[in-house]
Amino acid sequence: MKIAIAGSGALGSGFGYLLQKSGADVTLLDYWDDHIKAVTENGLKISVNGVEDTLPMKMCKPNELNEIMDTIFVFTKSMGLESMMEDIKHLIGEDTQVVCLLNGLGHSKTLEKYLDKKNIIMGTTVWTAGIDAPGVTHLDGQGPVELQNSDPSEKEAALEIVEILQESGLNGVYSDNVNFTTWRKACVNGTMNALCAMLDATIAEVFASSTIDSMLSSIVTEFSQVAELEDNIQIDVDETIDYLKALAEKVGSHYPSMHQDLANNRPTEIDFLNGAVAEMSKNHGIEAPYCQAITDLIHAKEDVLGIRKA
Amino acid sequence: MKIAIAGSGALGSGFGYLLQKSGADVTLLDYWDDHIKAVTENGLKISVNGVEDTLPMKMCKPNELNEIMDTIFVFTKSMGLESMMEDIKHLIGEDTQVVCLLNGLGHSKTLEKYLDKKNIIMGTTVWTAGIDAPGVTHLDGQGPVELQNSDPSEKEAALEIVEILQESGLNGVYSDNVNFTTWRKACVNGTMNALCAMLDATIAEVFASSTIDSMLSSIVTEFSQVAELEDNIQIDVDETIDYLKALAEKVGSHYPSMHQDLANNRPTEIDFLNGAVAEMSKNHGIEAPYCQAITDLIHAKEDVLGIRKA
Repeated sequence: MKIAIAGSGALGSGFGYLLQKSGADVTLLDYWDDHIKAVTENGLKISVNGVEDTLPMKMCKPNELNEIMDTIFVFTKSMGLESMMEDIKHLIGEDTQVVCLLNGLGHSKTLEKYLDKKNIIMGTTVWTAGIDAPGVTHLDGQGPVELQNSDPSEKEAALEIVEILQESGLNGVYSDNVNFTTWRKACVNGTMNALCAMLDATIAEVFASSTIDSMLSSIVTEFSQVAELEDNIQIDVDETIDYLKALAEKVGSHYPSMHQDLANNRPTEIDFLNGAVAEMSKNHGIEAPYCQAITDLIHAKEDVLGIRKA
Repeated sequence: MKIAIAGSGALGSGFGYLLQKSGADVTLLDYWDDHIKAVTENGLKISVNGVEDTLPMKMCKPNELNEIMDTIFVFTKSMGLESMMEDIKHLIGEDTQVVCLLNGLGHSKTLEKYLDKKNIIMGTTVWTAGIDAPGVTHLDGQGPVELQNSDPSEKEAALEIVEILQESGLNGVYSDNVNFTTWRKACVNGTMNALCAMLDATIAEVFASSTIDSMLSSIVTEFSQVAELEDNIQIDVDETIDYLKALAEKVGSHYPSMHQDLANNRPTEIDFLNGAVAEMSKNHGIEAPYCQAITDLIHAKEDVLGIRKA
């Protein structure tokens, strides 16, 4: 099976590595010259849950590959998905499956511009990964990778990918409700992530603030309303808030990724979280002004910090 | 005329000084021991538009004065008004006029708990002032001080205060629409002040951000809706936004007071701006979620910074 990894940073490299180890014909695609050079010359150096390995792998820029793929895993940042799809559309044939495990909302709509819904497989994962240097990455956790076809009648295709992910050790699991998991993760990121970024604070500090109940209930209520209208997904507001508070107890000392984005002068993914909810709400004749406020403020903060979006 | 200044920081000391110079029997009231001691021992040292003077003045804590006053000017921080009124209620008689020039919304409601509406005079001023050391202050500008009776049938009382303010050089002016001026100032503070505090940025930086139009129009629209329902005041959203943008051109390099509050670990006045709009909206069966978001975030930021409110 010919597999391309479109966006071979930390997570993409890790997935590509395990898929190639279990027999697939994998090409890593990315734009980062130093990383491509290092992998091409020395192979990918990777630590998977602490076990070190080096594997020769094919790696190039999207425009340097010219073959229709069987399966493409997209592993970009949310805001990089559309331009990546532009750059890899020549790799997509009639039967090419595209698997999207990105955090955030609205990605299936982006993918539908480039391929038939029956070939889109949406999913979520809790694998974590990092890049230590060009060509040197690590992958940690045990998954799972939950997958579901965008077109419910095409379950077979997703099951095939699940099997490949099982064989490779990536712990693929078929889910009847990937959309729910996606919205629930979005609720986590749209609260913890957005608020910690805005307040320059840890999760524990944000959850100890006197207005945490108003912030959580306002955000989750807007997410819940839009989830139902947009995707017919039921998000129970009270249960979600309880879940968030319990989660905050466990991971309180962390600064979530969006905070790190601002701290490192990178644009955030707010448009695919609170911003997506605000945008989607308009299509249904309602508003999500609380999420709009947070989105406006985060973008204004990016601007104040001089972070320009691509 | 016996006048008490309830809250004799920078602006209160300056008003008290000019009122006494023009013949009134003024007592400065405050809680700051060093300031009281300095004024009592050495007189108030003040610079009014660069002209230096020293004037012996009476100054004490509110509970140390025990006489019904003719007029009381309140010059607290917004969040200090209610506790100040508690502490000076023994100075208020049947005919005592209380003049309130505080920034922010909702103060007349607070005053109505302590005296008859006919004795409340609301106003605004553009005098600026500062404290250089205990007992040493400055007052700058030329006013005006716009005044209007809360009870429209009692215009005479306000005109009397206007005259005293004229005689003292404070440039008193009677206004038929103090409420409009108050709401318009609140629109300035509820946008520039709140956003600069939240974004840790100058006015120019905030107004150059890509989401400034959404932020201004969302906030001013909510202020306008509540101004109409609460006080029958018409705030034209587009005209106000044009005004704010023109003002931002002039004062762009400044950090407004709420930003300085957070920077100096002091609680902000957000509850009397965006927070007041969010609270008032509920009394009229609507919501102001954009202002609620900003209020929640500012309070959360106060909490993260360890600023506790009295």
